[in-house]
Amino acid sequence: MTLRLALAQCNVTVGDLPGNERRLEEAVRAAQAWRADVVLTPELAVTGYPPEDLLLKPRFIDDNLAVLRRLAGAASGLVAVVGFVDRDRAGRLYNAAGVLTGGRVAAVYRKQRLPNYGVFDEKRYFTPGDQPLIFEAGGVRCGMTICEDLWLDEPPRRLAAEGAQVLLNISASPYHAGKLHTREAVFARQARANRVAVAHCNLVGGQDELVFDGASLLLNPRGQLTALAAQFRDDMLVADLEPDEVGRVGRGRSAFRSPAQPRPRLRPAVRQPLGRLEEIYRALVLGLRDYVRKNGFSTVVLGLSGGVDSALTACLAADALGSEHVMGLVMPSRYSSAATQRDAKTVGAALGMGVREVSIEPLFRAALGTLRPCFAGRGEDVTEQNLQARIRGLITMAFSNKFGWLVLTTGNKSEIATGYCTLYGDMVGGFAVLKDVPKMLVYELARYRNRRGPGRPVPDSVLRRAPSAELAPNQTDQDTLPPYPVLDAILTAYVEDDRSLQEILALRRFPPTLVTRVVRMVDRAEYKRRQAAPGIKITPKAFGKDRRIPITNRYQVAA
Amino acid sequence: MTLRLALAQCNVTVGDLPGNERRLEEAVRAAQAWRADVVLTPELAVTGYPPEDLLLKPRFIDDNLAVLRRLAGAASGLVAVVGFVDRDRAGRLYNAAGVLTGGRVAAVYRKQRLPNYGVFDEKRYFTPGDQPLIFEAGGVRCGMTICEDLWLDEPPRRLAAEGAQVLLNISASPYHAGKLHTREAVFARQARANRVAVAHCNLVGGQDELVFDGASLLLNPRGQLTALAAQFRDDMLVADLEPDEVGRVGRGRSAFRSPAQPRPRLRPAVRQPLGRLEEIYRALVLGLRDYVRKNGFSTVVLGLSGGVDSALTACLAADALGSEHVMGLVMPSRYSSAATQRDAKTVGAALGMGVREVSIEPLFRAALGTLRPCFAGRGEDVTEQNLQARIRGLITMAFSNKFGWLVLTTGNKSEIATGYCTLYGDMVGGFAVLKDVPKMLVYELARYRNRRGPGRPVPDSVLRRAPSAELAPNQTDQDTLPPYPVLDAILTAYVEDDRSLQEILALRRFPPTLVTRVVRMVDRAEYKRRQAAPGIKITPKAFGKDRRIPITNRYQVAA
Repeated sequence: MTLRLALAQCNVTVGDLPGNERRLEEAVRAAQAWRADVVLTPELAVTGYPPEDLLLKPRFIDDNLAVLRRLAGAASGLVAVVGFVDRDRAGRLYNAAGVLTGGRVAAVYRKQRLPNYGVFDEKRYFTPGDQPLIFEAGGVRCGMTICEDLWLDEPPRRLAAEGAQVLLNISASPYHAGKLHTREAVFARQARANRVAVAHCNLVGGQDELVFDGASLLLNPRGQLTALAAQFRDDMLVADLEPDEVGRVGRGRSAFRSPAQPRPRLRPAVRQPLGRLEEIYRALVLGLRDYVRKNGFSTVVLGLSGGVDSALTACLAADALGSEHVMGLVMPSRYSSAATQRDAKTVGAALGMGVREVSIEPLFRAALGTLRPCFAGRGEDVTEQNLQARIRGLITMAFSNKFGWLVLTTGNKSEIATGYCTLYGDMVGGFAVLKDVPKMLVYELARYRNRRGPGRPVPDSVLRRAPSAELAPNQTDQDTLPPYPVLDAILTAYVEDDRSLQEILALRRFPPTLVTRVVRMVDRAEYKRRQAAPGIKITPKAFGKDRRIPITNRYQVAA
Repeated sequence: MTLRLALAQCNVTVGDLPGNERRLEEAVRAAQAWRADVVLTPELAVTGYPPEDLLLKPRFIDDNLAVLRRLAGAASGLVAVVGFVDRDRAGRLYNAAGVLTGGRVAAVYRKQRLPNYGVFDEKRYFTPGDQPLIFEAGGVRCGMTICEDLWLDEPPRRLAAEGAQVLLNISASPYHAGKLHTREAVFARQARANRVAVAHCNLVGGQDELVFDGASLLLNPRGQLTALAAQFRDDMLVADLEPDEVGRVGRGRSAFRSPAQPRPRLRPAVRQPLGRLEEIYRALVLGLRDYVRKNGFSTVVLGLSGGVDSALTACLAADALGSEHVMGLVMPSRYSSAATQRDAKTVGAALGMGVREVSIEPLFRAALGTLRPCFAGRGEDVTEQNLQARIRGLITMAFSNKFGWLVLTTGNKSEIATGYCTLYGDMVGGFAVLKDVPKMLVYELARYRNRRGPGRPVPDSVLRRAPSAELAPNQTDQDTLPPYPVLDAILTAYVEDDRSLQEILALRRFPPTLVTRVVRMVDRAEYKRRQAAPGIKITPKAFGKDRRIPITNRYQVAA
């Protein structure tokens, strides 16, 4: 007697109820063709995740319930577990799994542990469930969990005590670098502690600032990985669990029993997880592609400066959308060097994307002329630098308006952290691809892309040149910022690890005045970040919903 | 035997622990001078409200605990109730009230009901308390509540059952128009239902998008308002509760007893609440003043178009900061009429603020010239309109950079709702004063300001002229938008009342195609709002933390 599981990780879209219904029905049909006993779909697959305040619209809940009922009609000859929003008679909402079989909703499981930290706000919408659910399929007792339920000890323990042999987990677990290893370690601990198998089906796709990486997986009761689905793309992982690969038969109630089917055995090879840089690169490609396409755009435009940020952004855009859907603007000023202009065009040519040169000099001269009488007696300062960045923003937005292209902004996390960027200037754009990528990682990813091919789009001169905004004569980033290896290390400690100034000083790794200066820069740039474009979270703590700091804030972290 | 209460509504600042400590110590001293038995301060007065993710910094919690301990030292001869963040040994945080007397922290009450809806995220940070607290002061049994605790039935009922005669409530209740009446009605119901007096001390001041209006109040056990503190400013309301003004003596435990003091009786007159328009106007003035000053600015700059939005914004800025701290930029183009230019200058002169004229024509011509070769063969469209708005944004930001002025953006809620505004153009600014003020209310407030004086700063021609962005020949807003009375009514139904398209259609108040068009405009403008400046919430549902709609969202509300 074996249990055949199908883990259908599919890329659904928030709010696209008809589209999601089609995707889920296809998944059920495919699982039927595989003669699977159980097919799992991701958490809240009907609505997409996270639906945020769409959940406050009663009609949206109605529509999602209607989708679930129609999907139940398609579920025959197997058990389909579909994530949806349940509602009780008092109008309370639940993050739920519909367990569909025999053409009807046979049972509903309601998520018990609601995450309300980091990027999560589930307590804003949902009431926690308190009833475990176990059903029998293919002769195996299956215990239901939804995402967070499997990260905590109590829900798995209770299911095991009630005789579950495999824990099913439908999930929407947001990506950050290395998250798959964390998931595998946590779930393996639960498998071993409770002597049960684990089947985890994760969402895949980009949704605003989040990317879901898929990588659905199976673990045996010894905590060993026995199957892994693709990362960063749709996939259906089908595998048989033999009796020795599930927990021992337990006793307890079952909601229902679905009959076992005799079939030849099926065993997928265990796929190797992607390496660190490939994983991050693929996350950025998926996040970018889905933001562009799910918002109805096909083509993007970005400024090509000859620097590494815009070069990497162009690579990612070309890989995500095809180079014919990427347009680069080279916008030289009096401070642009011949070398950076040449490099900008080299990148564009190497990727095969369209490149257009538009000088900002006439507009810059007009701006200086217009403002001269107003600024008489005052020297040049950051105002004139910002003017150049803003003129580039104005030109890029004009292309966006005229041709319907989405603007990509190319700033990295080190810049947005310190405020080393111009509001309404280089920050202009609908999507900030590298918003959560620190500068040193930008270099790593550019080198990775050169190694991986196709082509070698980022010239060595771009990788070797001292970074510069080229907004003043002989300017480099290090006139204002500490060297990037030092800066990024301080930012990791302060932003991602949430250490206090005092703790960072106590590390004795950096000069104290430098740490204080960086921490102050981060605190003071909050108002800029609040008007920044969304971008893809790839670290444990991204700017955005992950880190909610007031703008008006007099807390002096500095001693 | 009477209980003398002092309600110290003070304007603290998020994160300013030393400044808040000084304010709170002054409040305690003042209450001592009044020979009060109990002084109440607002919810989380030590940290300011809402402190958001500052709460995740352990050092911030340490610092706040140190403030509370020092304040306890000042609390002698009375009971001081001070809002702070408590932490237990497991590191869990509580939204708490320190009850200070005899130079020590005599008791701590932990908030039991944590709001996690609307603008609130308290479950992200806090664990709910479960212990009621009653203490005796001036011979009266006082039951503690914090904000939300008094909005729900259970905590007051339990306190009354345990013999509380007066419910003390420390609060940070965000303002929206008419909120005071709601608060009074809810608290009066609790007073009557439980036959207890209510003493509610509310925060005052602006914090990013929120304004707290003060208006602390006393109710007798019949639910009648017996005292009301000032709205929108610091105040200390001192009043005696006679034995017939509190609930009957109950039986039960007291945490401690503070002795009664003989004094002559003190009874404040019941103040009249402000009228509707004055209330909203004052909320905007306070929100604007606090955003500017608490962020370290003194002077603001804004574009004066000759329209009613910028005229009202200028009035509010002059009233908030003094006209010497307000600078207006008149930025005509080829499409600006002589009449609007004249009106813009009239407003500036009437308010006595600085006005500078800067033509955008040279920059506009340079932009058109720069882009002509790129846009060959394509007609004029919204691109050229946006260029003008963005050039104005560029100029305004240049003044901001050069002189250190904060830019106010002048768009209203009707515009930001429908996306009838230009990203990086008229949306440029650090603060969006009218972000939550619908257009029709802008007119009402402008007329109110003319009536109230000083002066009559908004010319009749501004109030009578058809609104226009003046970005194309003979343009008016109604070329694109429905008439504002209709638009605002649809927006109220869709945004503030969260009605579905179907429900709005069922009202049969508006043409169906119009409703569908407006609803679609609102949905599609989410990406613009995500990059908008913060602004002051004055309605039950503002854009911002109140309304969290995904950008990537294919939900078709339209049937």
